[in-house]
Amino acid sequence: MTTHSSTIVRVLCSRVSEHTGQAITVQGWVHAIRGMGGLAFVDVRDRSGIVQCVLEGQLAESPLSLESVVTVTGTAAASSKAPRGIEVHASGVTCISKVEAPLPFEINKKNISARLDTVLDHRVLSLRHPKVHATFRIQSALAGAFRDYLSSRQFTQIFTPKIVASGTEGGSNLFPVDYFEQKAYLAQSPQFYKQMMVGAGYERVFEIAPVYRAEEHNTSRHLNEYVSLDAEMGFIRSEEELMDLEQHLLAYMFERAAAECEAEFALLGVEVPVPGEIPRIPVAEAQQILQRKYGKTSPKGDLDPEGERLICQYASEPNKPAFVFVTRYPREIRPMYAMPASDNAALTASFDLLFNGLEITTGGQRIHDYEQLSESIRSRGLDPTHFAGYLDVFRYGMPPHGGFAIGLERLTSRLLGLPNVREAAAFPRDRTRLTP
Amino acid sequence: MTTHSSTIVRVLCSRVSEHTGQAITVQGWVHAIRGMGGLAFVDVRDRSGIVQCVLEGQLAESPLSLESVVTVTGTAAASSKAPRGIEVHASGVTCISKVEAPLPFEINKKNISARLDTVLDHRVLSLRHPKVHATFRIQSALAGAFRDYLSSRQFTQIFTPKIVASGTEGGSNLFPVDYFEQKAYLAQSPQFYKQMMVGAGYERVFEIAPVYRAEEHNTSRHLNEYVSLDAEMGFIRSEEELMDLEQHLLAYMFERAAAECEAEFALLGVEVPVPGEIPRIPVAEAQQILQRKYGKTSPKGDLDPEGERLICQYASEPNKPAFVFVTRYPREIRPMYAMPASDNAALTASFDLLFNGLEITTGGQRIHDYEQLSESIRSRGLDPTHFAGYLDVFRYGMPPHGGFAIGLERLTSRLLGLPNVREAAAFPRDRTRLTP
Repeated sequence: MTTHSSTIVRVLCSRVSEHTGQAITVQGWVHAIRGMGGLAFVDVRDRSGIVQCVLEGQLAESPLSLESVVTVTGTAAASSKAPRGIEVHASGVTCISKVEAPLPFEINKKNISARLDTVLDHRVLSLRHPKVHATFRIQSALAGAFRDYLSSRQFTQIFTPKIVASGTEGGSNLFPVDYFEQKAYLAQSPQFYKQMMVGAGYERVFEIAPVYRAEEHNTSRHLNEYVSLDAEMGFIRSEEELMDLEQHLLAYMFERAAAECEAEFALLGVEVPVPGEIPRIPVAEAQQILQRKYGKTSPKGDLDPEGERLICQYASEPNKPAFVFVTRYPREIRPMYAMPASDNAALTASFDLLFNGLEITTGGQRIHDYEQLSESIRSRGLDPTHFAGYLDVFRYGMPPHGGFAIGLERLTSRLLGLPNVREAAAFPRDRTRLTP
Repeated sequence: MTTHSSTIVRVLCSRVSEHTGQAITVQGWVHAIRGMGGLAFVDVRDRSGIVQCVLEGQLAESPLSLESVVTVTGTAAASSKAPRGIEVHASGVTCISKVEAPLPFEINKKNISARLDTVLDHRVLSLRHPKVHATFRIQSALAGAFRDYLSSRQFTQIFTPKIVASGTEGGSNLFPVDYFEQKAYLAQSPQFYKQMMVGAGYERVFEIAPVYRAEEHNTSRHLNEYVSLDAEMGFIRSEEELMDLEQHLLAYMFERAAAECEAEFALLGVEVPVPGEIPRIPVAEAQQILQRKYGKTSPKGDLDPEGERLICQYASEPNKPAFVFVTRYPREIRPMYAMPASDNAALTASFDLLFNGLEITTGGQRIHDYEQLSESIRSRGLDPTHFAGYLDVFRYGMPPHGGFAIGLERLTSRLLGLPNVREAAAFPRDRTRLTP
């Protein structure tokens, strides 16, 4: 083991081929070790990829272990036998951080062979698996594209509080927080605040932030803390503008992620869909289709998870990604701020977006008239005085407006075909999981 | 009042001058009304700015009130008497949302004449004041530039949980959360998680998310919930690289914000500083300077708020923005994960960044050796088994690494010269404030 590596600039594993014949240093984790008659082949993995290093003579005896962090100095050399046509002929190896503990599962195989709970218990290890790693690179790209698209359309990024005095929907599914002498809760959504920021004159706003749902559900679709991509805009004519916006936004996000994460999508074997014109089906019509085509009965005014899967199946070609806007939900199953449909006061100007069988968005136009909103609150058996801070903006001049929210983990899981939404959260929080 | 406005496409107030002679529609809030002999001059404000509309004859009798939301149709006309050389000769005015409530303060004067508490109590109104509005446009630009700079340097955006099982610093200043049957807390920082993501193979990560401090302080510098701009990177040689990174990052953020928000900075009368080479002063030396120059005694190993102000004053030219890195804090006042200085085990490879008299960043290199970190935890009287999820990454291969966090509201308030950090939070949370 030698330590003269610090004098040579580090080259990322994926860029070694640009330095053929040169003395270089690579740094990363020991991904795999293969010994062969006095030679050792060590795959080094960094944030960019993997490169094979060849250790000869005494170096081949280096006591390396999987996942240790190493610095390898040597010469980049083309090799038809190396996995990517390039390898590093090592002249020195330094172990920066040695792994002595046994690994709970192997991360240098095609997939991790372990139960999801084990994968999540040892998250810092499982995230190193190239496929899992790819998931969160793609998630980062999706979030960045969300921001860029909306910024280019003059949306302002907002930061609103997650500690709130009351819930947006009347008080259920809230996590209580001890806030000094006061009782507080974690925000279920930035709904009120994003509306307030529209009315505060920003007109077009977005937020990328965690939201909290104290739901008892423990399913493959639910997280108790997740990242909500929220958008809200003023001076709209109807909810159709919001669906137009989301459709174009998603097309941009997918296109950008595909361009930025070409290698990641290839590794995952995922072809990125290009959402075109997304069908908009009133929920009552969707229910009729489900009944007629699949003999499926739906709950009143809504679709259940099986119905969501089937209507996506109905709306798409076989084995193609499916997007469906389900629209015109009845008032009784939408929140008090939902704008009644212009032609039918029993329905709302609202929508859900289903993607590959799962709801990833709820959105709609909101009531902007103070009296109408106060009345809607009372009609739910709630007291408008409990919403004074929110209602203020409606007393001080509020334009027609609406918006939507996309669950980032659900979007990621549907795009990548991950069966459980927990796989799309770096450190998921569910009914029982608080660590790591 | 007429309603034929919906057939003409909306033009933003700031763009009216591009449509001279054309029939247009503007939409926004009634910023000011001036009557004059059968004429009414109505200033309409939207997200882009303000335009004067001239109402004649019967239209001048329209019962408009300040802050109502209106649609004005008319003809764009150049006018040397209009405030911006352009006005709209109205042919129709529609009130979309009428304000009947009295306004708690005027927002069409140069500044708001009201106490800060009143300004915050009626936040949706105060945010409409052009100067307050500008503050959060600039904040949005700063956050976007933070993301873009780090993305361009191959940092991955991460999303880590804010509901955690234990604190990063041993349990003080935590807000408790009822998490089903378990006791949980709100994260004081993403410190552990960003380190874990570095060690999980992403190497370079950033996060833009809220953090929570249950501090009893009720000062002009403290918020109990704020937005933390966090960065962390692996394979560093020393904390000097982190200070280099932050220096370049801030220069980029300020440059980008200045370019995107030229009008906003002009309105606020703020000249955006260009941080060049920021001085790096060991805290012991800073203390000596304070003693020698100002006869000021400092607390052991640290600077107090007055010391932070004075050392900024010392390091900058009079009336110029001041940046100072204060470095080499003693171990006893830094967290257990702080890397000891390479040449003095009683000190740490850490730094704070002061900006115009206030600490806006804490950063440093972290310990990456498992045994050393376990020992450091024990030396604080803490139990390493309570940090098992965090310590895992150090057992499974961890490179040298470090990072820093910038408080977004503090950065904004220092940049804009806002005396109270609450003015840089859209909806601040402090010792007593939970609403709006």
